[in-house]
Amino acid sequence: MNSSTPTHSLKLLPFSLLFLLGIVSAAPHNIPRLTAIRGKQFKQASNTILAYNSEDFKTFFHNQTLDHFNFRPDSYAIFQQRYMINDKYWGGAEANAPIFVYLGAENPLDDDFNVIGFLADNAPYFKALQVYIEHRYYGQSVPFGSIEEVMKNEDTRGYFSSAQAIADYAEVILHLKGTLSAQSCPVIVVGASYGGMLASWFRLKYPHVALGALASSAPILYFDDITPQNGYYSLSARISSALVFVNDGVLQEASESCYKTIQESWSEIDRVASQPNGLSILSQKFRTCSPLNNSSDLKDYLESIYTYAAQYNDPSTNPVSNICAGIDGAGQGTDVLSRIFTGLDAYYQDSCYNLNPSGTTSRSYFNGWGWQRCSEMVMPIGRSDNTTMFPPEPFDLDSYVKRCVSLYGVSPRPHWVTTYYGGHDIKLVLRRFASNIIFSNGLKDPYSSGG
Amino acid sequence: MNSSTPTHSLKLLPFSLLFLLGIVSAAPHNIPRLTAIRGKQFKQASNTILAYNSEDFKTFFHNQTLDHFNFRPDSYAIFQQRYMINDKYWGGAEANAPIFVYLGAENPLDDDFNVIGFLADNAPYFKALQVYIEHRYYGQSVPFGSIEEVMKNEDTRGYFSSAQAIADYAEVILHLKGTLSAQSCPVIVVGASYGGMLASWFRLKYPHVALGALASSAPILYFDDITPQNGYYSLSARISSALVFVNDGVLQEASESCYKTIQESWSEIDRVASQPNGLSILSQKFRTCSPLNNSSDLKDYLESIYTYAAQYNDPSTNPVSNICAGIDGAGQGTDVLSRIFTGLDAYYQDSCYNLNPSGTTSRSYFNGWGWQRCSEMVMPIGRSDNTTMFPPEPFDLDSYVKRCVSLYGVSPRPHWVTTYYGGHDIKLVLRRFASNIIFSNGLKDPYSSGG
Repeated sequence: MNSSTPTHSLKLLPFSLLFLLGIVSAAPHNIPRLTAIRGKQFKQASNTILAYNSEDFKTFFHNQTLDHFNFRPDSYAIFQQRYMINDKYWGGAEANAPIFVYLGAENPLDDDFNVIGFLADNAPYFKALQVYIEHRYYGQSVPFGSIEEVMKNEDTRGYFSSAQAIADYAEVILHLKGTLSAQSCPVIVVGASYGGMLASWFRLKYPHVALGALASSAPILYFDDITPQNGYYSLSARISSALVFVNDGVLQEASESCYKTIQESWSEIDRVASQPNGLSILSQKFRTCSPLNNSSDLKDYLESIYTYAAQYNDPSTNPVSNICAGIDGAGQGTDVLSRIFTGLDAYYQDSCYNLNPSGTTSRSYFNGWGWQRCSEMVMPIGRSDNTTMFPPEPFDLDSYVKRCVSLYGVSPRPHWVTTYYGGHDIKLVLRRFASNIIFSNGLKDPYSSGG
Repeated sequence: MNSSTPTHSLKLLPFSLLFLLGIVSAAPHNIPRLTAIRGKQFKQASNTILAYNSEDFKTFFHNQTLDHFNFRPDSYAIFQQRYMINDKYWGGAEANAPIFVYLGAENPLDDDFNVIGFLADNAPYFKALQVYIEHRYYGQSVPFGSIEEVMKNEDTRGYFSSAQAIADYAEVILHLKGTLSAQSCPVIVVGASYGGMLASWFRLKYPHVALGALASSAPILYFDDITPQNGYYSLSARISSALVFVNDGVLQEASESCYKTIQESWSEIDRVASQPNGLSILSQKFRTCSPLNNSSDLKDYLESIYTYAAQYNDPSTNPVSNICAGIDGAGQGTDVLSRIFTGLDAYYQDSCYNLNPSGTTSRSYFNGWGWQRCSEMVMPIGRSDNTTMFPPEPFDLDSYVKRCVSLYGVSPRPHWVTTYYGGHDIKLVLRRFASNIIFSNGLKDPYSSGG
């Protein structure tokens, strides 16, 4: 990655922001549309701060069944699933001391240690065993070898689903309880964002395995048509758009005129792009390293810049103030897009701007979450009007499906998550049926104090 | 089938016995071991008494997804799943009138109408919609064409599992609720025996789809190692061996000496079989149509004869009295096996006895339940000592697995049912988590009054 990208300043970020980074970069609502992942990427803080002492952990690999739900010969294939255990504080099986299980999400397990404080923070008080299980197809738990090879093959990537993943967790936990003679020890599963969905779904589907779940920042209602007619729209929209609102708010707070300039810029980009030579005008104006192929690349890039600046508003470099000072300082006479670029360049001062870093697309699309969003995690996330500074972008299922089919050859199943896990009338269902699920919102209620 | 087999008298049986026939012939514990199905078969009462008026039913076919849990190209195959609806008594969507859904089990749907009284009996009082859904791979709901072809192919039969089946039910019910604008109508799922397991599992896995379940005669505890160490053995053994005890009791009641002769006969068969020319001696003594290949065929045959006689003890033909009169009347001087044969022949009077009717094995093994028992429905059912008149037969997982592998090429997964559905500490789990599941025992608590 180009050293002039803002990610090099991550080492200076305090843990609370890293925590947020972890939650946010893991959040499905971080990717409000498929195209957005072509913009500037958030860097994982994998080599920065270690929230755990690696010496206390032992790593194991479980012989995991590829396909739990069918009995075809291929279903019986076994892959190695990684999990890690820390028994430093565990009170032991005879004392019925609890087992805290972190359910891995869409990252290698290594990345999650940096941002998951709950287990480490609470284990000493509860004398709990800490278990971290990696999600299938991530990190070192990839069936059939390298993730790149696996994701290219429509048959091998087809077993990459949430139902298989939580069945994996059930198998590992039951195996562990057997090995440790810990059948009577209560199990609490923990997860954040997508992992939070997994934790709540795990408690719903495997109540005989987990006694409780802590689901942090889990947008389980953001599926299918759980929309106005059910009265959940305002709730789910609020939760899932929280990131947009936060970014929006930070920039609005910094400068009202800056906010309005950004708000105006999207349609101006479209207008210029539609002119003869429009794309080359834009390429020049934004000093792109290579000519623009379409205006979306530019909009996605700028969107990620603002999001990033607001989210990781490092006090030592002040990206928000710097960008807005640039935008506002360009003067009233300057046109909207020139002001935008002045703001961008005031902070980053790059010789040219690489809107689509090589390898980013393939890494995103063939590294897990892109596939999951195109198979079952169909969250109809859109911005339907001009109430934020970001461009309106209504969710369009048809084009979403077309895009997924062109990428992966198979169509998403937009209703499967609500069919299998529920969602409609979830309050009613949870009250009547489930218990011991804590839903916390990671943005307002930091995960590390979630206990 | 040979017209001299006792099944031709079924037409005379009253409904209450037909009910029992349905429950019992559907019951997994009807097949205490794999070999038993090589004995005399119970005939389905498919053309005898109709418990419903077929004019009130409309038949539909749902475009069902072959594989709900994976996203391989093959997973997207669609098959036609049959379901039938009777809206004669339904109070309608606006009145939030309930929907009773019978979850098909290991029979064609047509067979089940004869024995399932609950829906028809209760629909008028609850103004309920009656829905009957056929289980995948049975009746007219077979993917890929004929069941014989499908079951020969290891890939096509591999999608034949309970998890897929209950996901099918969820899809059909949600589709129906959508079509009928009946989202607010409570759904109660109903099933007996294997279907009863499905009903209870459905309520556990899809609480957002079904508000309640009536699970009749469902041996959900008969899996894995839910055995003495957990304190469930006596309970589950009692439930699952109920059929054996009933047969046992009926014959013991008829004649104590008959009972004792049968009890002694099993070891005597083994003793004779182990002698030189033993099998041909047995073939002669029991007038078999073709020479015996092993003593198990004879024992299985006799076991099914006694079971059948006691279970369907038609008052007009009195099989129990006739068989026991023959056994007891042979005189004290006659050897045990001759007395047994005299009893058999007194009732059936066949020219020869066909212990392994052609086609029976393949029909059983390739028609569904044999496969299900060899994939996930691994119920460790055995008779561990001489407390019944039947031969002791401890369950041996190793030989069970070997037999399944030789038949189907894949190994059963004996722990999967308890992993996915639970079972250990089920009382605790049900009390803490589930609700609205009624478990009734079909043998003592007839299904038709189960409401």
